[in-house]
Amino acid sequence: MSLVVQKYGGSSVADPARIQKVAGRVAATRRKGHSLVVVVSALGDTTDDLLRLSRQISKNPSRRELDMLMSTGEQISVALLAMALHETGCDAISFTGGQVGIRTDSAYTRARILNINTDRIRRELEKKRVVIVAGFQGVSPQREITTLGRGGSDLTAVALAKALSADACEIYTDVEGIFTTDPRIAKDARKIGRISYEEMLELASSGAQVMQSRSIEVAGKFNIPIHVRSSFSDKQGTWIVKEDRSMEEVLIRGVSLNKSEAKLTVNGLPNRPGVAAAIFRALARDGINVDMIIQNIGKLTDTAISFTVPKGESDHALKSIGALRGRLGFRDVSLDSNIAKVSVVGIGMRSHAGVAAAMFEALGKNRINIEMISTSEIKISCVVKKGDGEKAARILHEEFRLGKKGGR
Amino acid sequence: MSLVVQKYGGSSVADPARIQKVAGRVAATRRKGHSLVVVVSALGDTTDDLLRLSRQISKNPSRRELDMLMSTGEQISVALLAMALHETGCDAISFTGGQVGIRTDSAYTRARILNINTDRIRRELEKKRVVIVAGFQGVSPQREITTLGRGGSDLTAVALAKALSADACEIYTDVEGIFTTDPRIAKDARKIGRISYEEMLELASSGAQVMQSRSIEVAGKFNIPIHVRSSFSDKQGTWIVKEDRSMEEVLIRGVSLNKSEAKLTVNGLPNRPGVAAAIFRALARDGINVDMIIQNIGKLTDTAISFTVPKGESDHALKSIGALRGRLGFRDVSLDSNIAKVSVVGIGMRSHAGVAAAMFEALGKNRINIEMISTSEIKISCVVKKGDGEKAARILHEEFRLGKKGGR
Repeated sequence: MSLVVQKYGGSSVADPARIQKVAGRVAATRRKGHSLVVVVSALGDTTDDLLRLSRQISKNPSRRELDMLMSTGEQISVALLAMALHETGCDAISFTGGQVGIRTDSAYTRARILNINTDRIRRELEKKRVVIVAGFQGVSPQREITTLGRGGSDLTAVALAKALSADACEIYTDVEGIFTTDPRIAKDARKIGRISYEEMLELASSGAQVMQSRSIEVAGKFNIPIHVRSSFSDKQGTWIVKEDRSMEEVLIRGVSLNKSEAKLTVNGLPNRPGVAAAIFRALARDGINVDMIIQNIGKLTDTAISFTVPKGESDHALKSIGALRGRLGFRDVSLDSNIAKVSVVGIGMRSHAGVAAAMFEALGKNRINIEMISTSEIKISCVVKKGDGEKAARILHEEFRLGKKGGR
Repeated sequence: MSLVVQKYGGSSVADPARIQKVAGRVAATRRKGHSLVVVVSALGDTTDDLLRLSRQISKNPSRRELDMLMSTGEQISVALLAMALHETGCDAISFTGGQVGIRTDSAYTRARILNINTDRIRRELEKKRVVIVAGFQGVSPQREITTLGRGGSDLTAVALAKALSADACEIYTDVEGIFTTDPRIAKDARKIGRISYEEMLELASSGAQVMQSRSIEVAGKFNIPIHVRSSFSDKQGTWIVKEDRSMEEVLIRGVSLNKSEAKLTVNGLPNRPGVAAAIFRALARDGINVDMIIQNIGKLTDTAISFTVPKGESDHALKSIGALRGRLGFRDVSLDSNIAKVSVVGIGMRSHAGVAAAMFEALGKNRINIEMISTSEIKISCVVKKGDGEKAARILHEEFRLGKKGGR
């Protein structure tokens, strides 16, 4: 008998009918004899509904009160799922994050898990009960309710799998797994059977939104195998596991596309030490997530720095940089929201030269202009015009033979 | 500087605009220098929405899971009110029942408060913060979430007023106070300035739905003055206080009408000892709230027993009694939902004879047939045909000179 942690996202529990389906799946797993801990997100749009309510009252609400508010979404889900399981004759009990000892720091709206006291969960599992835990939330040392940030239910599941030494952690979602690229972009995209934590992390941070990055990091750190699969079918999904030698045989694991970033360029910046540091220190202080950075040296006297940020933070970034103008003496800041970032990811890249050249050539041959480039050990990203984004992803998907015909 | 506990019901916080109004009122009280603890119910229809969700999943959900679910309603309210108070510049902090140490027993959906550890509240009051507490909920010795039953937010307010030795407990609602009868029934109904706990208790249990009975009992037990008033105006409402001599000068304090009960009659019941006990033991075991009971002795060999229950429980009661038929050997059970109960209440009754006679005469003169009668020391109730209910209440309101012209 093994211990399995399952996590169901908001779309899997969007309404009573879907909750009943999830209950059916959980009960079936239970009947196979597995011990089960189930983590649930808030029902469908609940999180957005609550946020809208709070915005009608305050544009900049207290983060503590936001967490008090938002944590109710998951609490509703766990109670309803427990009721649905009882209806199937399956014994189950629901808990808030606080009740099952998910201790976090006090960084409201983006708290970090400090530790998990699993006593209560183990007691309930011994009674042969399915334990249902509200995702996304915990409790601070002062017993205040905290939340772990968007996608935090993934983190709850992975952290529980670690704390309980679970045999598997299954992430249920509305897609069948991780694909070589978005199937809406390339029809012959293949479902990836196994992918390493590192590759998944690079794919997630470059546009694939199946799982929250921090939860992949934690899973990798503690070597917890993750099975990403559909809550609407019984098919095997994608296993996220520790890198092994066979994985290196594949040059590129996947191609991702991210259209949610904007590019800012600071023009006419004096070419002297400390200028770049001043800019990125200001952005960090204002909590803006900077992704790619490039610096073009134009003349000897001045330069330009470009960087990308999530579109939702671009206005904030403009303001943040604008405030430095007097001190740094640059000419102006320009904003370009009309961009897309296409990335190829694969640990096979490490031992094979020429991936970058092949990528740039394929794009060039198809007259797609590259505006920015950034690389990591296992990823190469290019910023292109937004209109070229999907075409670029398709070209690279074909170039590296990732489709159903080309792949192994 | 005094300490005031204020409670706002669901209609007072039905939407963001109303929450902002409540925040304005709270902030104004705070500016007067009072220390403030505010208890809030769930937003408008939230409780019903949650119940509907649960019913789509289970007809008879686990009470523990129901409490897990229902308690989210008040948690949403307190977070939003705290945000609204922050917007007015007033420092405030919200808490769940569990966080402020409202300890209850484990009787889910109708838990009783065992004690309140006020340390956390006092610490926050010392910081000059308004403390906002989720009504209706507490936490069991096993740290499970419990709720106090419908109207439980009143009880939260009264219990906090007691635990904190508050100077006043204000119950804000959508009416201006307690009236001599429902102003929709008698246009000249007067707002009552002061009423004793006992009278209020009788009025509440006989139809006036302004405050939950248990909270009035607790207030009376600990002699906590309650001010029932409107959240939409600044007028004085009704004070519920300890009985004093001046109150006895008024014969009848008010007339109440209850149209939410049904009458069951068990016919052809063998006239032998223990039969009535068997019936009401079965009803009690099934958790059915029986109000009035009368027994008619017909022939020597058999009898009939009639009693009233809340309409929502009448089917359950029919089933409960039906199951006894084989054992008790009665003829049948009949149900009459077409009834109304009209009651007159007043502690002056104790020292004045003839109230019952005056009541029956007034109804008789107006050709209203009385079907059942029950009396307490300070109340007389009559069951009449439903269609006669409002007329009966008007007649008695006039008979005892409770209206604006007749009253003192």
